[in-house]
Amino acid sequence: MKKSENLMETLTGLCKRRGFIFPSSEVYGGINGFWDYGPLGAELKKTIKEAWWKNMVQDRDDIVGIDSSIVMHPRVWEASGHVDSFTDPMVDCKECKSRYRADKLQEYREELGKKGKAEGCPSCGGELTEARKFNLMFKTFVGPVESEASVAYLRPETCQSIFVNFKQVQTVSRKKVPFGIAQMGKSFRNEVTPRNFIFRSREFEQMEMEFFCQQKDEDQWLDYWKQSRFDWYVEMGVKKEKLRLRQQTPDELAHYAKAAFDVEYEFPFGWQELEGIANRGNYDLQQHSKASGKDLSYFDDEAKEHYMPVVIEPSAGVDRTLLTLLVDAYDEETMENGEERSVLRFHPRVAPVQVGVFPLSKKLAEPARKLAADLRKHFRAFYDDAGAIGRRYRRQDEIGTPYCVTFDFASQEDSCATVRERDSMKQERVSLEGLVEYLRGRFE
Amino acid sequence: MKKSENLMETLTGLCKRRGFIFPSSEVYGGINGFWDYGPLGAELKKTIKEAWWKNMVQDRDDIVGIDSSIVMHPRVWEASGHVDSFTDPMVDCKECKSRYRADKLQEYREELGKKGKAEGCPSCGGELTEARKFNLMFKTFVGPVESEASVAYLRPETCQSIFVNFKQVQTVSRKKVPFGIAQMGKSFRNEVTPRNFIFRSREFEQMEMEFFCQQKDEDQWLDYWKQSRFDWYVEMGVKKEKLRLRQQTPDELAHYAKAAFDVEYEFPFGWQELEGIANRGNYDLQQHSKASGKDLSYFDDEAKEHYMPVVIEPSAGVDRTLLTLLVDAYDEETMENGEERSVLRFHPRVAPVQVGVFPLSKKLAEPARKLAADLRKHFRAFYDDAGAIGRRYRRQDEIGTPYCVTFDFASQEDSCATVRERDSMKQERVSLEGLVEYLRGRFE
Repeated sequence: MKKSENLMETLTGLCKRRGFIFPSSEVYGGINGFWDYGPLGAELKKTIKEAWWKNMVQDRDDIVGIDSSIVMHPRVWEASGHVDSFTDPMVDCKECKSRYRADKLQEYREELGKKGKAEGCPSCGGELTEARKFNLMFKTFVGPVESEASVAYLRPETCQSIFVNFKQVQTVSRKKVPFGIAQMGKSFRNEVTPRNFIFRSREFEQMEMEFFCQQKDEDQWLDYWKQSRFDWYVEMGVKKEKLRLRQQTPDELAHYAKAAFDVEYEFPFGWQELEGIANRGNYDLQQHSKASGKDLSYFDDEAKEHYMPVVIEPSAGVDRTLLTLLVDAYDEETMENGEERSVLRFHPRVAPVQVGVFPLSKKLAEPARKLAADLRKHFRAFYDDAGAIGRRYRRQDEIGTPYCVTFDFASQEDSCATVRERDSMKQERVSLEGLVEYLRGRFE
Repeated sequence: MKKSENLMETLTGLCKRRGFIFPSSEVYGGINGFWDYGPLGAELKKTIKEAWWKNMVQDRDDIVGIDSSIVMHPRVWEASGHVDSFTDPMVDCKECKSRYRADKLQEYREELGKKGKAEGCPSCGGELTEARKFNLMFKTFVGPVESEASVAYLRPETCQSIFVNFKQVQTVSRKKVPFGIAQMGKSFRNEVTPRNFIFRSREFEQMEMEFFCQQKDEDQWLDYWKQSRFDWYVEMGVKKEKLRLRQQTPDELAHYAKAAFDVEYEFPFGWQELEGIANRGNYDLQQHSKASGKDLSYFDDEAKEHYMPVVIEPSAGVDRTLLTLLVDAYDEETMENGEERSVLRFHPRVAPVQVGVFPLSKKLAEPARKLAADLRKHFRAFYDDAGAIGRRYRRQDEIGTPYCVTFDFASQEDSCATVRERDSMKQERVSLEGLVEYLRGRFE
């Protein structure tokens, strides 16, 4: 029995206890909206990023990647509209001093169980201030003088550096429309109320791709990308029935977007956006052309004409993908012997540890360590010789390791080991010589 | 004939023209000290990071990785000493308003050819202000209020999040001393005068590993890591004779360090630090224990005692490594036909494009594209059908592609293609069936 609120609490606890994710600077009491990824979380994050990059850049010849700076010229954010309009409305409670997003008050009230109450502070019912606009960009100063002239921002999205670099990248890569430019990297938003674990944090990592096409092909490419991106989550092992594609309604659409679809996942806190696939038109290229005075149009050398391509943008989040994998994989069950176990049913492709290697006894540590070292050349392998074998299995179940290999006293005689599968808990005797092939065949 | 100053100019030009690196936000005139990596640069950067992570984390069982936030609790930087002491002395010219690091004036004068002049502004000779201290941390504000209470900093180094997380990571990973914690990621320093292309920029990426050991073993581990890190650059293809290990003199040592070695490379602008390998003692763990009130000591369950381990830290830079690979690989030569070519002699392991695939004529585009798609499963492959074949070779030479495969009219008959090697420019006929093996054998 999984219960919504409990699942998020349980997962947050598991993540901290097993080293997936914990609050940043925790010894100093943490800092709201910032998270650190421990050994397993860092590996999982890396796997997600590599899978995205392979799918988007390496396996294709119509998309190239870039890696640009987080701090950009401040005029980028004037032209993009962020300096003026990237704001949330904010209210403060005059009594308890809590701060809320004015457009989410009802949601907070429901969460806090104040469903009946339609007014006042969600936590104490006190009087609220008028809503004020609050810009979500983190500000800093470049150079030694703190003045208006030296203000710069941490990027709130990675895509703008793709737009300002469009012409440069197109020229050096000699790509012809349709083609795309992809980027992964950190973005920062000074959220009024970071929440839902890593779902909405102040520092997060994006995976964005801007696909430049002719206007006449915009619908075709929007269709292509919304399907392709939906399929990617399924390939990462996410249950199809927990995913959906939803078209944004006209009042949800960003002002620059002509149409957009969201890939949504059913989290314990409701259906939420995992990724947006938007037709941004040529708004961004137009804005930066105007503001910079540099012509960012594309020259079609067959048609002998210049035009501004239309942009289809699939914009995904590393942290949200990671949270989805965790939520989707988490399960609890009662085993035949009556014991409870919690298990992360990760697809073997994404599991942070793919193979656990155990000696049955510490006396077998040497050959088992050697086996782990051999397997490490092919998989993310982990060696463990501490505690009873059942306990070692439980530890691997809890972090989602799909296969465990136990080296026992017979192994030295018959050159075989026992392979135990996570979900079925079935065990099979496999020759050491054929072990890599055996596992590889189960990982695809 | 390579000339120091010219080489850096030539490389900067090549990097921009071919899409390795260009100034950030260039359409807005750029922003001093920030750089963007284009398609080839992003690929090269990714290769460096993956090689480091593999070498440091994946191939070993005594080091785990983490990935922590850039913005941390501000008390981290008080405890580490950065708020008080991470400063450079700065002077301004009262006449031309240029700004310099007070401790580097003589260097600037030499660069600007004012060698004789021992005083005054390096560019105009004007009177300089008194030196003032300037903190190199970028400041920002977390939450909607800009006040002293909401100040936070962009991390100036990645290692501090390893220290504050030491206990947490050690506990969840159940590692015993000696073991290490590794991290790659962006750091930020508000340099007074960013310079030497990407060598000293304001936003850069670090690869740091903190190795925790017993005090009695500190010399042995310092020796191990200085050698291991030196060897890594050689494995990445850097010429051994351009690298050296140099022990820091007592007056160079950071106040917390007991001993340190630099891996240095002979850049056109002199021997410069690529990486520092330092014995930081237990300074950082002590500081954070004191400041946070949390005991960060290690419990040795065999000896039944608590102690603060000593830390050996190899601290490398992604961007500096990348610059080293570029400088080290760059060459110009006159070919037999009298033409000049410029070539990046990258090791095949690191080359951003590993195989170029060309159809001899556009009529052969289809089978050549198919060949490129097949090779892409194994290598970083690039398809090019534009221009004369000689020109295509030149383009690949310039970006350091070690092998080019040309699919010609005979290829359809004999199922072979011509493989041309970058450095010797020798060509060889190779069967398509054996091509992957042929190339793989040359890449290790």
